[in-house]
Amino acid sequence: MNTLETLGQAAKQGARALLTATTEQKNEALLAIAKALSENCDYILEENEKDLEAARQNGMATSMLDRLALSKERIEGMAQGVKEVSELPDPVGKVLSDTVRPNGLHIQKVSVPLGVIAVIFEARPNVTSDAASLCLKSGNAVILRGGKEAIHSNKAIASVMQKALEGTALPSACIGFVEDTSRESANALMRLNEYVDVLIPRGGRNLIRATVENATVPVIETGVGNCHIYVDKDANLEMARDIVFNAKTSRVSVCNAAESLLVHKDIAEKALPMLYEALKEKDVILYGDARAKAILPQIEAATKADFATEYLDYKMSVAIVDSLDEAISHIYKYSTGHSDCIVTDNDAAAKRFLQEVDSAAVYHNASTRFTDGGCFGFGAEIGISTQKLHARGPLGLPQLTSFKYQISGNGQRRV
Amino acid sequence: MNTLETLGQAAKQGARALLTATTEQKNEALLAIAKALSENCDYILEENEKDLEAARQNGMATSMLDRLALSKERIEGMAQGVKEVSELPDPVGKVLSDTVRPNGLHIQKVSVPLGVIAVIFEARPNVTSDAASLCLKSGNAVILRGGKEAIHSNKAIASVMQKALEGTALPSACIGFVEDTSRESANALMRLNEYVDVLIPRGGRNLIRATVENATVPVIETGVGNCHIYVDKDANLEMARDIVFNAKTSRVSVCNAAESLLVHKDIAEKALPMLYEALKEKDVILYGDARAKAILPQIEAATKADFATEYLDYKMSVAIVDSLDEAISHIYKYSTGHSDCIVTDNDAAAKRFLQEVDSAAVYHNASTRFTDGGCFGFGAEIGISTQKLHARGPLGLPQLTSFKYQISGNGQRRV
Repeated sequence: MNTLETLGQAAKQGARALLTATTEQKNEALLAIAKALSENCDYILEENEKDLEAARQNGMATSMLDRLALSKERIEGMAQGVKEVSELPDPVGKVLSDTVRPNGLHIQKVSVPLGVIAVIFEARPNVTSDAASLCLKSGNAVILRGGKEAIHSNKAIASVMQKALEGTALPSACIGFVEDTSRESANALMRLNEYVDVLIPRGGRNLIRATVENATVPVIETGVGNCHIYVDKDANLEMARDIVFNAKTSRVSVCNAAESLLVHKDIAEKALPMLYEALKEKDVILYGDARAKAILPQIEAATKADFATEYLDYKMSVAIVDSLDEAISHIYKYSTGHSDCIVTDNDAAAKRFLQEVDSAAVYHNASTRFTDGGCFGFGAEIGISTQKLHARGPLGLPQLTSFKYQISGNGQRRV
Repeated sequence: MNTLETLGQAAKQGARALLTATTEQKNEALLAIAKALSENCDYILEENEKDLEAARQNGMATSMLDRLALSKERIEGMAQGVKEVSELPDPVGKVLSDTVRPNGLHIQKVSVPLGVIAVIFEARPNVTSDAASLCLKSGNAVILRGGKEAIHSNKAIASVMQKALEGTALPSACIGFVEDTSRESANALMRLNEYVDVLIPRGGRNLIRATVENATVPVIETGVGNCHIYVDKDANLEMARDIVFNAKTSRVSVCNAAESLLVHKDIAEKALPMLYEALKEKDVILYGDARAKAILPQIEAATKADFATEYLDYKMSVAIVDSLDEAISHIYKYSTGHSDCIVTDNDAAAKRFLQEVDSAAVYHNASTRFTDGGCFGFGAEIGISTQKLHARGPLGLPQLTSFKYQISGNGQRRV
């Protein structure tokens, strides 16, 4: 039996123990983890330094080094995050429906953990404790598999968390950690159907694509956001300018940042220069279609590919549309189903946009940057789903549960 | 562009039209379909005869021929089924939550269609109209791909339904039909990510396995049921006998039939002969572990594989367990997560069983045969999910929806 199989088996046993864990036991375990992270700060920093050293030798870019680097403050932040998860309501054991059938069968639909959640992630080591705490609070065992750049940091954090569980009611097998960072180990985890109930990939396009392509376990696709803002003919242009500026530039590297701008032809002559001026402040490069370029000759020419691109950069595509219908059709064609926005003072147009645009979050007169577990009031999130199965948008604690039917009878048989 | 791609594109356009279809429009379309099925009864029977002729020439077994054969009554039954779906409540457009955030953002979580649902099915031609009507009522376009044995029947039914839509508000592209019954066409449909939001396979183990193995689109696994009945030491033995008899023999070919019997050691001497006598009436063959065979030497010896087998036949595995814990562990190991039952008069034991057995439906003192959309009061079902993502148990109309967040603001930007 290989290591991953052993990990899977242990996690499944952990998941079984979690099925009967009380809210108090789960919260105690989370507080023990938070305490252990603080107390083992020096050890985690030492291990993090090994990753940083290797990264510097490999010539990692400064921005990436910054994402990888931990500090006392960041580790305290991780511990604080775990504590906050302990304070969120327990999503398990909720009676979602309760019926008595004509034959007397009493059917209760009750929220239950998913079981074993595998999380494959890249980038920042704090995902290790974020993901583990959300999974535990929702009664799930977790198998964590981070990237090789952060292997020492992730391993240190995972082992601190596992040891912290030893003094609690939850077995340390509730947190599994895959030390092998080869592509093979990721692929094998994606096919560990006997033990993994759900796989959540957290990372860039390539990770998501590889997961969709290779996984045989159920997957929640996350994260790719080609988000649109449509400035309607009835828009308040100052509001449009401020929303576009915020959605594009407040943080360019995140999936809820706007990537594409659609402007109604009737107001384009006035709106486009205003938008251009605002975005220029942050040196945003605009890629426009022919009609946008006719108004703003100084911008770049967009190719078709631009309209399908999630830049994650100070870049934005822009097109002029003849109507609300054309805007919706454009979004239907190019959107990744993450977050799309209409700016308008016309309620009928807003209503149509909210109904017809088929994305996880559809906005009227607000920045797409709000698609986030915290902003939605979920307290925390493990990612943002862009698929329609199971859950869309921010994946908070309730989205990490399933349900079952508990049925009580007095001898009923089916005729 | 190949045929499947064309079908996918058309279905996606159909799905877009369905996003704005009213309940009335959907119901009118369903009634038009029901009417058309009745009116085109002769044509459908002619086409069905082609399938039957081919099946007879290929030496198809009588029981299979019976599943394939249509009749005036069966077609009327299909039409009636479509009518009944039109009478069910519309699952789309329900406000699932409604919050105003401190910054004034108004966030509504609203149920929406999944989009395009692909259904790959085997066996009976009535699935064609059952699946299509459930998908349409829940606002989804459907792509149907049946087996080659029923190709003429399925194609006739699909074309009657498509033509019926022509006179309604719904485009006929809402129902797609894959004429190619090769394995390649099924595999290609499983990977049509650009157009298919969800794939539901309806069929036997091999179809489900092939789907899980090959699909890159999100899948709802259905149907495999290795269902257990545990007769506790505190069981009412007459009730246990009647439940086991019903769950095993009332219909052996279905996924909610019981396949495995666990009996507490303290009552095994008395219970096993009673159960054996009852099951003998239907010539059920028992496969027992060593301890069961010690009590009933006349039964077959079980191998380990027996306990993992969904017989779908007049066969049942049987084991003696020392405790409720051992019963739960056995089920945790062998169950496919479909339906499992405890028979007991001990409420504490029942409560533990209902909580700890990790299956879609867990029963106390009732037959596992009730795991069914009709019996649960859902009106109809498109299959029974055995996975935990998205939906478990019978897939009724609400399970064929997703949700989105509709967010209204007055210029909010994220700081």
